[in-house]
Amino acid sequence: MNEQINAVLRPKSIAVVGASATPGKIGYTVLENLVKEGYNGVIYPINPTATEILGMKVYKSISDVPGPIDAACITIPAKFVSAAVDECGKKGVKGLIIITSGFSEVGDRALEDEIVAKAHSYNMRILGPNIVGTLSNSDKLNASFAPFLPLEGKASLVTQSGALLIAIDAASFTRRVGFDKLVSIGNAADISISDLVTWLDEDASTSCISLYIEGFKDGRAFIEAGKAASKPIIALKSGVSAHGAAAAASHTGSLAGAAKVYSAAFQQAGVIQASDLNNLFDRTLALSLQPPMRGDNLLVLTNGGGVGVLATDAAERYGLPLKFAPADVQAELKKHMPEFGSAKNPVDMTGMAGLEWYHETTKFAYSHPWVDGLVVLYCETAMTNPMEIAQGILTAVEESGIKDKPITVSFVGGERSDKAMRMLVEKGIPAYPAPDIAVNAMGALREYTHLREMVTEGAVAAPKVDSKTAREVIAKARMEGRGALTEIESKQVFAAYGLPVTTTQLARTEDEAVALAKKIGFPIVMKIVSPDILHKSDAGGVKVNVKDEQAVRDNFRTIMANARAYKADADIHGIAIQEMAPWGTEVILGSVNDPTFGPTMMFGLGGIFVEVLKDVTFRVAPVSAGQAARMLGEIRGAPILAGVRGEAPRDRKALSEVLCLYSNMIFDLADEIAESDANPVLVYEEGKGVKVVDARVILKKKA
Amino acid sequence: MNEQINAVLRPKSIAVVGASATPGKIGYTVLENLVKEGYNGVIYPINPTATEILGMKVYKSISDVPGPIDAACITIPAKFVSAAVDECGKKGVKGLIIITSGFSEVGDRALEDEIVAKAHSYNMRILGPNIVGTLSNSDKLNASFAPFLPLEGKASLVTQSGALLIAIDAASFTRRVGFDKLVSIGNAADISISDLVTWLDEDASTSCISLYIEGFKDGRAFIEAGKAASKPIIALKSGVSAHGAAAAASHTGSLAGAAKVYSAAFQQAGVIQASDLNNLFDRTLALSLQPPMRGDNLLVLTNGGGVGVLATDAAERYGLPLKFAPADVQAELKKHMPEFGSAKNPVDMTGMAGLEWYHETTKFAYSHPWVDGLVVLYCETAMTNPMEIAQGILTAVEESGIKDKPITVSFVGGERSDKAMRMLVEKGIPAYPAPDIAVNAMGALREYTHLREMVTEGAVAAPKVDSKTAREVIAKARMEGRGALTEIESKQVFAAYGLPVTTTQLARTEDEAVALAKKIGFPIVMKIVSPDILHKSDAGGVKVNVKDEQAVRDNFRTIMANARAYKADADIHGIAIQEMAPWGTEVILGSVNDPTFGPTMMFGLGGIFVEVLKDVTFRVAPVSAGQAARMLGEIRGAPILAGVRGEAPRDRKALSEVLCLYSNMIFDLADEIAESDANPVLVYEEGKGVKVVDARVILKKKA
Repeated sequence: MNEQINAVLRPKSIAVVGASATPGKIGYTVLENLVKEGYNGVIYPINPTATEILGMKVYKSISDVPGPIDAACITIPAKFVSAAVDECGKKGVKGLIIITSGFSEVGDRALEDEIVAKAHSYNMRILGPNIVGTLSNSDKLNASFAPFLPLEGKASLVTQSGALLIAIDAASFTRRVGFDKLVSIGNAADISISDLVTWLDEDASTSCISLYIEGFKDGRAFIEAGKAASKPIIALKSGVSAHGAAAAASHTGSLAGAAKVYSAAFQQAGVIQASDLNNLFDRTLALSLQPPMRGDNLLVLTNGGGVGVLATDAAERYGLPLKFAPADVQAELKKHMPEFGSAKNPVDMTGMAGLEWYHETTKFAYSHPWVDGLVVLYCETAMTNPMEIAQGILTAVEESGIKDKPITVSFVGGERSDKAMRMLVEKGIPAYPAPDIAVNAMGALREYTHLREMVTEGAVAAPKVDSKTAREVIAKARMEGRGALTEIESKQVFAAYGLPVTTTQLARTEDEAVALAKKIGFPIVMKIVSPDILHKSDAGGVKVNVKDEQAVRDNFRTIMANARAYKADADIHGIAIQEMAPWGTEVILGSVNDPTFGPTMMFGLGGIFVEVLKDVTFRVAPVSAGQAARMLGEIRGAPILAGVRGEAPRDRKALSEVLCLYSNMIFDLADEIAESDANPVLVYEEGKGVKVVDARVILKKKA
Repeated sequence: MNEQINAVLRPKSIAVVGASATPGKIGYTVLENLVKEGYNGVIYPINPTATEILGMKVYKSISDVPGPIDAACITIPAKFVSAAVDECGKKGVKGLIIITSGFSEVGDRALEDEIVAKAHSYNMRILGPNIVGTLSNSDKLNASFAPFLPLEGKASLVTQSGALLIAIDAASFTRRVGFDKLVSIGNAADISISDLVTWLDEDASTSCISLYIEGFKDGRAFIEAGKAASKPIIALKSGVSAHGAAAAASHTGSLAGAAKVYSAAFQQAGVIQASDLNNLFDRTLALSLQPPMRGDNLLVLTNGGGVGVLATDAAERYGLPLKFAPADVQAELKKHMPEFGSAKNPVDMTGMAGLEWYHETTKFAYSHPWVDGLVVLYCETAMTNPMEIAQGILTAVEESGIKDKPITVSFVGGERSDKAMRMLVEKGIPAYPAPDIAVNAMGALREYTHLREMVTEGAVAAPKVDSKTAREVIAKARMEGRGALTEIESKQVFAAYGLPVTTTQLARTEDEAVALAKKIGFPIVMKIVSPDILHKSDAGGVKVNVKDEQAVRDNFRTIMANARAYKADADIHGIAIQEMAPWGTEVILGSVNDPTFGPTMMFGLGGIFVEVLKDVTFRVAPVSAGQAARMLGEIRGAPILAGVRGEAPRDRKALSEVLCLYSNMIFDLADEIAESDANPVLVYEEGKGVKVVDARVILKKKA
């Protein structure tokens, strides 16, 4: 574990720089919180003018402290922080918890950069600045101005909103979702969310990492941290609406939007998403208490048809559609219900079900190998006792001895049901007040398995590429002062990365055009090549299905004349002679250089699918074969690729490979390519491959 | 108000038939519940063997009761119910609350029909059978075996699940969502959900009608009841998953599915939907306490960026995307926050905001005419007091004197926040533990306005139609023992209802074909007409773009020969000579006769939109011009009709009219048409209309 981050989150000794004797001041509150919770390390209040606060000896400065200091919690005004960092560094402090605000969040990036550089020069790490602080139940550490430690639990939360930390801290008790650590990350000037994910993954007191994210910079590090983690990670990403978002410049860019790219990145990082704040609590509870669900067979037990039907709907909604249990399972279940009960799925024991039936049915179902996950529902009745039902469920789970299969519970009712659920949660069984939430939580446990399968499916094998040629093409365009490649150049770059582009070569003269056409083979396509003519068709600069030499000659002259007429002073390179690809299913690939995640690719079907339906999907590059195949499957138009209306299936294998190659290209050339697209790409029948018909590369602006 | 339903839900006197002295028996529980809650009417226990129960005189039979009886609550076994109905009828009882089970729900439909018929013969109405009973806070009436009256409130709930009634009853206290009436509808053998909607709409103690629906029979009555209601209605429809649903037979049928048709019907009925059980509680609370939101300007006030961002995301998700407030509003808001606060929307007063800022900002914003709805968020801090904040909000609302503008609130925090929210709810301000819920609730209040605008936008003007001709065509086909119409017949029916079909006429001979072709005008389409050849193209029975007389003659012979070769004994009517419509944008209309809602229409774009994307929308027929226009707008492919890629907009006006005419046809011929479709229908540029190119009608099976 990183020693400095360790010192920040689990310090053995902590100095409070700016400790104050005045209640209401943050320097007082932090000190009081440390004392009040019974922090099990050593506390050193630092204040140049005080001598004793809360009965503790106060040191005039860090250097006066006799023993070693793991962490310094800094609460003094921003302008004094830099000097304090120096003092801490000289003393040998390992980490800084900078609560103080007044840095980059109010525009003072320089000051923030300065303190980070200074801290690093002393080998210190910084949490913050501009944070509430950090809390840890297992260390009785409340190094923050949040009023108390949260309800004890196995999840740990990292939040970019300090206000939410305080609110969640309080809410942990009323919602009965416990945490070991709550960490406010503030401006994340040094220690990042990724650093914390990595650290918490090794923290013995944390079983689930819960994140509230507004946005971060180090997208790639986050993906790597997520992939490497061995504990479930759940993230609520806010700020996904268009309100106030800057208009995007490019086509792919306008389709991307931060929400879609973050979503893709979370998937690639193996991170589960929460849809809203309640969902973050609900899923965190399940992920911190229960093992992942390893198969698709969900069984629902209930005492009421109504909640059973609601759970059935939810199961479909959350990706776990119910199946009927095998006949032998049904036969056994039938034993614990009246004649009018149902042993199908949901298993309806009817309102007559009490402790005994719940106990026996839960025990049998939970132990049966067909069942991969169990949701037990109870609808409060006048005749049965919720606490007894809960006891029945708990005993069944305990007696089964099973530890590797998840169970979630929902009791719909009043105070008696709430108490029973609280007991279950304390015993490690997540319980919720509505059936769909119990199913949603189970969905998260299933999703976790899927995500782990994805992130561990093998690294991306870097294909052999001719990056030298690609970089030469780009260098030449830059030499000529151009910000974009021509179609021919773009295709040269694509081809260098193994992409199957249509053969396209430049003819400067009519004779060259004829020679090239013969070499490529008729019919051919002819297109004007000029950096000054972007809309080639509008300029009369495109002729398709050119079938013989005479037509090549006629068209050469026509296109040239049209181009001159369109723009007299255009810099005309010549005419591209291009292989005419047979028609196939149109798809589009595109790329952007995302500010958080870097080179990110888009895939979709062409035409109306992309233009009208925005039916596209994203991944951070490079992508593995598995991810590429998933991209093909997750667009709404996926059946088109599988073959509809009697058409043969398209060559999805070749297309997946093209996605991988394309992603590898934009990743490898991330320093050069700002945006690119391949549009259209034609996909043929299985075994017949893919052709990139048009290609475009926009270069990164360089300083 | 219906006198009999009045007698059931608000009886002045009630007899308990089957009153029992044995605790645990339902006849005891119901009596005890009536007594315990202090029912403000007269109670008559009926039992042939007992003399006194719970200190009350017991009557041997209904006829022994001295005074009049409004309602009889029946708890005796099913086999004795029929006789009891007779006794009640003779006594002049007005309504029956039949708690007893053992009727249609266990397959005994005959017994259920018998008691309903008998009750009607005495002018009595039945609630049930197979119910928990009915509860009314304003009458202190608990005529059920649910253990207590719910938390007092202004909503009333009707539920098809008795188990859920009991659970919701208990949950009303813990969730602080109050109800005046809880009504269990059970088998709904007589009094239906529609009847209850109509009754509750007139009930002075009910301000919002909340429904849990698994499925009902009288779909049209429900739509009418919903449209006529003057109070918000919210429904949670369960059983929307595919699990266990019967496979649908037809194309439109397979696309329909109960969930989509119910959803369309709810919209047409002006009924708001709840997505799950929590959402039913949350939206019920808002709809029962707050007025509708009459415009789109939502303002969000907050003390924390995090919850503000979450609310912004939710606003977009729930159809109320935030806009920046006008400059003068921002200027005023700026006065009540520190420099680093934000007066944009969300208005972030920062964590320093206490009672005073909340009070002043809420008062100003709530009173400002630009604001159509206000969401006030509070994120619990260590320095501020949730109850004070709540007081600030409440006082602001009260001082404003405004009654016709909605406000919802969310406090994220612990016990202190929960208490503050409870106070707000008691004072009529809906408050929720997460910001997105407060926004979702506001979304329901906005949706309510939209739905009321829809249902009141004017009745469907029945177009002039020639139903006589249509019915003659159908009668002829039936005479010939056919279950479907030919294309020509289908088009005759369509044309009779004003639909613009391509001219299509039957030629029996080559000469007739030539004559018809000349009359219609070249080019034409020729198609085999035979009830034995359904797949005309496969049989070589279709020729398009036939341009002259000779081609007509050649094709006539070829088609006839092909048909004979395809099926030697086919009954060939001749060859259809059809106007060849110029190509346009393909759409599809379809209809099914839904078991709940009757004739229901589908609309979608043709080709991949319907086949791959299932991009279709439904309405119960007939539809108004407004609903037709909405159908065109709500498919994902809607931009196609608006004109994409430089294409001119399609003639949506003409298409809307066609939808209305089609819906009128299937409604008017509901007794004849089982399913129908118009596929393709070609839509031309604005002003150039629509053509129905192919039509199909499948007749209802008649006994």
